[in-house]
Amino acid sequence: MKVHYECLTCIANQCKKIVEMATKDLEERRKAMFLAAKVIAREYHEDAIPAIAGSKVFLELYKFLGNDDPFREYKEKSTEIAKKVVSLLRNKLEIDIKTAIKLAIIGNIIDFSVGFSPEDLERQVEEMLKEDLYVDESDELIEKVREAEVILYLTDNVGEHYFDSILLEKIREISKAEIYIAGKEGPIINDVTVEDLRRDGFERFGKIISTGTRIVGIPFNEISEEFRKVLEKADVIIAKGQGNFETLSEIKDERVFFLLKAKCPAVARGLGVPQGALVCKRNI
Amino acid sequence: MKVHYECLTCIANQCKKIVEMATKDLEERRKAMFLAAKVIAREYHEDAIPAIAGSKVFLELYKFLGNDDPFREYKEKSTEIAKKVVSLLRNKLEIDIKTAIKLAIIGNIIDFSVGFSPEDLERQVEEMLKEDLYVDESDELIEKVREAEVILYLTDNVGEHYFDSILLEKIREISKAEIYIAGKEGPIINDVTVEDLRRDGFERFGKIISTGTRIVGIPFNEISEEFRKVLEKADVIIAKGQGNFETLSEIKDERVFFLLKAKCPAVARGLGVPQGALVCKRNI
Repeated sequence: MKVHYECLTCIANQCKKIVEMATKDLEERRKAMFLAAKVIAREYHEDAIPAIAGSKVFLELYKFLGNDDPFREYKEKSTEIAKKVVSLLRNKLEIDIKTAIKLAIIGNIIDFSVGFSPEDLERQVEEMLKEDLYVDESDELIEKVREAEVILYLTDNVGEHYFDSILLEKIREISKAEIYIAGKEGPIINDVTVEDLRRDGFERFGKIISTGTRIVGIPFNEISEEFRKVLEKADVIIAKGQGNFETLSEIKDERVFFLLKAKCPAVARGLGVPQGALVCKRNI
Repeated sequence: MKVHYECLTCIANQCKKIVEMATKDLEERRKAMFLAAKVIAREYHEDAIPAIAGSKVFLELYKFLGNDDPFREYKEKSTEIAKKVVSLLRNKLEIDIKTAIKLAIIGNIIDFSVGFSPEDLERQVEEMLKEDLYVDESDELIEKVREAEVILYLTDNVGEHYFDSILLEKIREISKAEIYIAGKEGPIINDVTVEDLRRDGFERFGKIISTGTRIVGIPFNEISEEFRKVLEKADVIIAKGQGNFETLSEIKDERVFFLLKAKCPAVARGLGVPQGALVCKRNI
């Protein structure tokens, strides 16, 4: 998915939040925004993919600001709250694989780039449990998971990965596949890194692997050789969130299933669904 | 006042609204935003003044979109509502010159660049009438007006000019000065143009004069020779709104009084007042 008209302001607004999180110094913020304007003008063009353009801008800001993880606190807060909510859900609900898929999708609301406040998680989760998936190809996904020898699970946001652990558990129950769980090489916005996965014990589900890059999604020019090999051998690829959708929708690859909430108008338009729709959709 | 860190996103967000008002065609909007990104990168720099940088970006967008006045409807709506509210106020209130000054300041809330909805006017006006001016140098202003031989009144937004007419009336009651009322040469955002002033009969207050440019505020490199002459001979200059503040605060000129609501954090910071403050402040 290439950038839509809304992506310029989305990226710019995220830059503003980043500089506010990174420093209280108004002159530093100002200089950072001058840089942001230039990098945005360079990266926001006809062939740009929002996740990649945004990441490149943000990483230059991090460097300029001398702050390699302005989202540390936001991620800590998200984790704390998500842990609590997921624990509540495990106690309260009967969770079969279809419910687990839905919960993984619901977890995708924890997304800084659309301004999500972690404090609001429990309430929103309860609301969305009552909703149906707008696109529900989960039966197909489950079948593919059962058949698969190699499954690649692409995580997205911190906190959301606790919801992913519910689905990963279920996948292990129904499948004997070799499972790879991917995280970013290093911090970018509030995305899950391999460090997060290790710290939170995700080896209990499978092999933790880095995409090889900090760029959001699966940027084909930036991923590592190691990751590319896993990408090639996977029988099914579970792709969480908007960034993975934006990048993987650029290629013909029916192994991919997109699991996300279509939070912004551009992604909703790209998916052909209403804004806010919960989606489990094969990349066809 | 030079650009603050918040001005990048403010300008970008206004661009998005402009393209949405100008066309429903998503591809046109997209292309327009690519242009916006480039022009913003060119105009948003250390020495930029927000009103001027913004205007330059917007005028290039107008040209690209082939729409020379995307705000026509917004201005019509503002006028309709402001006319009604001002009429109600004239009936309801005892209006002395100090109240007229306050009302002129209150009228400054009609500002597209901060996302104001005209429908909300009456309610907000009533609230603000109960407030005091945060900076109140109106006694000094009144004295200068009484003494003046030439008064220059710089309008700002459409709809707000109906509130300005209340103050212009009072000025004519207490002063024998030659009065000039300035508007823009042509449409820019929702600013008052000389055409608006003529259409709404502002010659009853004085001489209508164009700044000579569509750029918001008083951009010294762009104003006409005719306007410059009036600017030079004025004894007191009543400068409405944020754009006039941003430009005129760049020069030492004690003839200038700023009358505005400090609606955005940058202007509030530039004035040294809390955001939302109502201000009548001499340019000292």
